[in-house]
Amino acid sequence: MNIPNIDLPRLVIIGAGFAGLQIARRMNTNYYQTVLLDKNNYHTFQPLLYQVASAGLEPDSIAYPIRKTLRNRKNTFFRLAEVQQIDEENKQVKTNIGNLKFDKLVIATGACNNFFGNATIEMNSLPMKSLTDALNLRSKILGNFEKALNTNNLLEREALMNFVIVGAGPTGVELAGALAELKNKVLPKDFPDLDLRKMNINLIEGAPKILAAMSETSSQKAHQFLKQMGVYIYTDTLVTDYKNNLVLTNKDIQFTTDTLIWAAGVQGDFPKGKHTELIGKSNRIITNEFCQIKTSEDIFVLGDAGIIQSEQYPNGLPMLASVAMQQGQYLAKTLNQMAANKSIQPFVYNDKGTMATIGRNQAVAEIAKYKFQGIFAWFVWMLVHLMLLVGFRNRIVVFINWTWNYFNYNNGLRLIIRPYRRPFKKNVQ
Amino acid sequence: MNIPNIDLPRLVIIGAGFAGLQIARRMNTNYYQTVLLDKNNYHTFQPLLYQVASAGLEPDSIAYPIRKTLRNRKNTFFRLAEVQQIDEENKQVKTNIGNLKFDKLVIATGACNNFFGNATIEMNSLPMKSLTDALNLRSKILGNFEKALNTNNLLEREALMNFVIVGAGPTGVELAGALAELKNKVLPKDFPDLDLRKMNINLIEGAPKILAAMSETSSQKAHQFLKQMGVYIYTDTLVTDYKNNLVLTNKDIQFTTDTLIWAAGVQGDFPKGKHTELIGKSNRIITNEFCQIKTSEDIFVLGDAGIIQSEQYPNGLPMLASVAMQQGQYLAKTLNQMAANKSIQPFVYNDKGTMATIGRNQAVAEIAKYKFQGIFAWFVWMLVHLMLLVGFRNRIVVFINWTWNYFNYNNGLRLIIRPYRRPFKKNVQ
Repeated sequence: MNIPNIDLPRLVIIGAGFAGLQIARRMNTNYYQTVLLDKNNYHTFQPLLYQVASAGLEPDSIAYPIRKTLRNRKNTFFRLAEVQQIDEENKQVKTNIGNLKFDKLVIATGACNNFFGNATIEMNSLPMKSLTDALNLRSKILGNFEKALNTNNLLEREALMNFVIVGAGPTGVELAGALAELKNKVLPKDFPDLDLRKMNINLIEGAPKILAAMSETSSQKAHQFLKQMGVYIYTDTLVTDYKNNLVLTNKDIQFTTDTLIWAAGVQGDFPKGKHTELIGKSNRIITNEFCQIKTSEDIFVLGDAGIIQSEQYPNGLPMLASVAMQQGQYLAKTLNQMAANKSIQPFVYNDKGTMATIGRNQAVAEIAKYKFQGIFAWFVWMLVHLMLLVGFRNRIVVFINWTWNYFNYNNGLRLIIRPYRRPFKKNVQ
Repeated sequence: MNIPNIDLPRLVIIGAGFAGLQIARRMNTNYYQTVLLDKNNYHTFQPLLYQVASAGLEPDSIAYPIRKTLRNRKNTFFRLAEVQQIDEENKQVKTNIGNLKFDKLVIATGACNNFFGNATIEMNSLPMKSLTDALNLRSKILGNFEKALNTNNLLEREALMNFVIVGAGPTGVELAGALAELKNKVLPKDFPDLDLRKMNINLIEGAPKILAAMSETSSQKAHQFLKQMGVYIYTDTLVTDYKNNLVLTNKDIQFTTDTLIWAAGVQGDFPKGKHTELIGKSNRIITNEFCQIKTSEDIFVLGDAGIIQSEQYPNGLPMLASVAMQQGQYLAKTLNQMAANKSIQPFVYNDKGTMATIGRNQAVAEIAKYKFQGIFAWFVWMLVHLMLLVGFRNRIVVFINWTWNYFNYNNGLRLIIRPYRRPFKKNVQ
């Protein structure tokens, strides 16, 4: 890999998510040469992917070019690369564009879907972890209604208009709410010749309640909001298989659907190497409270890819954007302190609370000891997400979209953009 | 195809471009049942595709969902369908979702690229006729620089940083100008470790001047603007072949490039059928001055797909958005008159002028007998394009982007969005 040789220790960061980007932007550039690697040239604001999937936001407004965030930072380099292996002994990473030596390494590669070993579900369901996933889902959802218009087969039409979301964490709940708004407000005007009452949104959750990580109050309120919007909720239910448009569960209930959206679980995702021997819950790499792996004090794992095992966090920290961001900020500070031969402190998580939005004026939030629901929670949710978005332009565009949608539910992003189709010309010849 | 049987004559429109959309939105819904068919669910504002390709605008802001434009129009239906054949004798169209009878038919299918029979150019060059094309081009251009960073092979780097645009009509000229702005203002900050002076933009034109359809003054001024921005222009030059990254011409000059963008010619593009026997210049279907084909007075061809042959227009009309829009408006009126048994008039083109933008503050315009260049032409160009965009939201978003870019050349749309990549997980197993 072409990186200039500079007489400074080299810090390599794999992944430009919430953790990796924070470090790259905060390192003291006099102490380290920083090389950030990612398989995409942009940072994705994952908490809003569901709004891209439900045609509420354009993809470009929740993505941000990595190079732009690193402008004017000296000794800082970005490379578009897929890391294939981490060679701890020789302190280098192997990538599709060559090898790169490191002095310090940060693994901040995040998480991928966890299908709990079910290959048919993995093959047939739609995930929502990346911008591409969200765009595919948008095209799929809108395409289903176009297809539903063209079939006289009632079973096929039912499958096309039935949506099953597996997993009622924030992602599943927010997507269910967004689909319900599409059903109630947007699609009936787009498809006047289709009976939209036959569109069903089913949310399936293995735990006894939705938003299992939140309090009973928040969970119940979110449940009530979703029910009012017409979402069918099945708790205590596990999806066991999905093929030929049929979703099977561990209960006496099954669903016919062409669209199974998987939001049921994630697991740590990282390149192979010796560190993969230190695996904890949800396939996350075990670290100490300094986010270091146990076999090397020069390798750190942040965010969803790692899990701290210490007395302070016996169950590790949740897989949340706020944990990743705080760890990124922490590690930048710690690495700078290490370089200056100062003493370092273990990572302390500052729990800023959790929230989920269900629909307009309807959200649930838990901040410190305060729990609130409804329109105030919804405004707080919007404000927090606007602030967390990277880039002033993105904030403006998202704000305009939200304001626009608030007043007329109709932003005109319902595009089915699919790969190249050949022109008619080819048919003629 | 599932279209309700209504006791009205059925008008089928193929293509929701500038012509097709105008008709569908203007028909008297008491006289006709209107069925609009398109292979995409959105209308594309083609004149601004080049700004999507050069990362100046998000794709969603120049596309508009067709269903949204037809809201609240009774007896009007849209179907997402690819028309495969037109059966004039039985008055029906054959599509991938079934057959559809028509009483009146409008072929408004536009144009596709014309490679003048050169198969290697067709296979290796990048077109810019659709939103997908423009997004592919954006990813390709940005990806080239990421790759250029990773190679020590100077010939390969040259090929990656050399851009060749074939055809100096408005599309080629506007794209060349946009790439020059990327080179001069945007990319040096994104790629501080790459020598951007080595990026070359070459514009090749077969005619003796660029913007051949415009006046000598406009052409010369545009030429001067482009040269000032560092674009290399080769007039009187024909590209004869392109393979192994080498562009050959009919002159003693050749180019090494990984990116050949084809903007050299378009031709009419339409489903097969009997009307394909009536072909004029540039593969366009010959019509009379009522836009009717000669073998059936119930079949009309509008826009780029058709060419009027009459005394008034001995050379036909140019392939321009304004011609298509006016023909759409004309035909809606004419069909309404026909249904009301009123007399009809032949189509008269109202030439509103032409313009092309080269860069900030730099455009050329010819409106009626007035020719003007520079900042005033540029403002007129922006104003006209904002007005022609479909949808108020799109106008706002484009306006914000343009204003933003005007002040800081930096809008953050430089995303390489490519199809699905598998997670690391798969490497581990």
